[in-house]
Amino acid sequence: MPLESLKQRIEFLREIDQLKSVVRQSPLLDQSRRENSAEHSWHLAMYAWILQEYAHGPVDVQRVMKMLLAHDLVEIDVGDMPLHGGSSPTLQAELEAAAAVRIFGLLPAPQGQELLALWQEFEAAQTEDARFAKALDRFQPLLVNVFTAGGTWTQNRVSREQVVSRYGPVIQRGAPMLWELCKQWVDTHFAAQAS
Amino acid sequence: MPLESLKQRIEFLREIDQLKSVVRQSPLLDQSRRENSAEHSWHLAMYAWILQEYAHGPVDVQRVMKMLLAHDLVEIDVGDMPLHGGSSPTLQAELEAAAAVRIFGLLPAPQGQELLALWQEFEAAQTEDARFAKALDRFQPLLVNVFTAGGTWTQNRVSREQVVSRYGPVIQRGAPMLWELCKQWVDTHFAAQAS
Repeated sequence: MPLESLKQRIEFLREIDQLKSVVRQSPLLDQSRRENSAEHSWHLAMYAWILQEYAHGPVDVQRVMKMLLAHDLVEIDVGDMPLHGGSSPTLQAELEAAAAVRIFGLLPAPQGQELLALWQEFEAAQTEDARFAKALDRFQPLLVNVFTAGGTWTQNRVSREQVVSRYGPVIQRGAPMLWELCKQWVDTHFAAQAS
Repeated sequence: MPLESLKQRIEFLREIDQLKSVVRQSPLLDQSRRENSAEHSWHLAMYAWILQEYAHGPVDVQRVMKMLLAHDLVEIDVGDMPLHGGSSPTLQAELEAAAAVRIFGLLPAPQGQELLALWQEFEAAQTEDARFAKALDRFQPLLVNVFTAGGTWTQNRVSREQVVSRYGPVIQRGAPMLWELCKQWVDTHFAAQAS
């Protein structure tokens, strides 16, 4: 391998250190602070590994894990877009596409292309791998909200109906059995809120 | 899949949220704070993906990535052991082995066994996959120290010779070309310190 190629890879690995400083809305489960996008990506890769049998269709779990490790790197340039409230989805998608080209473009061409293609596949959500990855990216924050007495739902006055419409279709499409569990959690959570 | 199995997996995924609160000695590259073991594990999986061509022998990069995602989970029970200074390695190894049994034991048996076996393989460092993973686990903090004006080396008054003996054999065995680059970085760093 030529030295130039190694230098490009090192430059990329240094650049993505910044993902550790992108703070998400979701708290840690112990509520000591908010989660950052790097540790979120780690956790989602673990979710994919551990929950692979609950995918809707046949998936290549290694590809799903790679997709999840890389899916938030665009946030280095554009930040995390909150699910509840936030800016225009169309504008955000344009900014993220430009960020993907810049960040994955730091790598030597064949490798940068592999990461860009995986990121685009995740965004398009048309393959079983991408749909499972998307489902987990919704499932994890839902779990966090359920186990932190409402988390971002309470903060943003999100109703049971909004939870079902914002999380349901994505989780159900990629991991229907997980959505069955979510419905029980959501019902229990909002019943307790109402009482 | 029986519901009991899903509940065990969820319990495991909740438990490992604690890795985000295990703080390492190494800083982030921007030196804004110290790194935690969850985001470190994310970064190492990315290192494996991006630097796979620099492994000493043929490796299964997917296994290496899984190994690195799971390698620090024992720290939930026993904390991070600093490379420079720190407690008895033998005692630490015993505590980590017990932690691995407890934490991976939260999972349904076949899956828990897969993670435990991968962790044991990483610790034993006898396979090409494990040696490459171990090399990256040394390479990343070395890179951080080089690009943060000495980082933990400066704090702990670590000499050039100590750096070479503590990082060299592990990186050279798993990723010899990366060690060639490290030697240049280390020489430049300590030459600048001396001048």
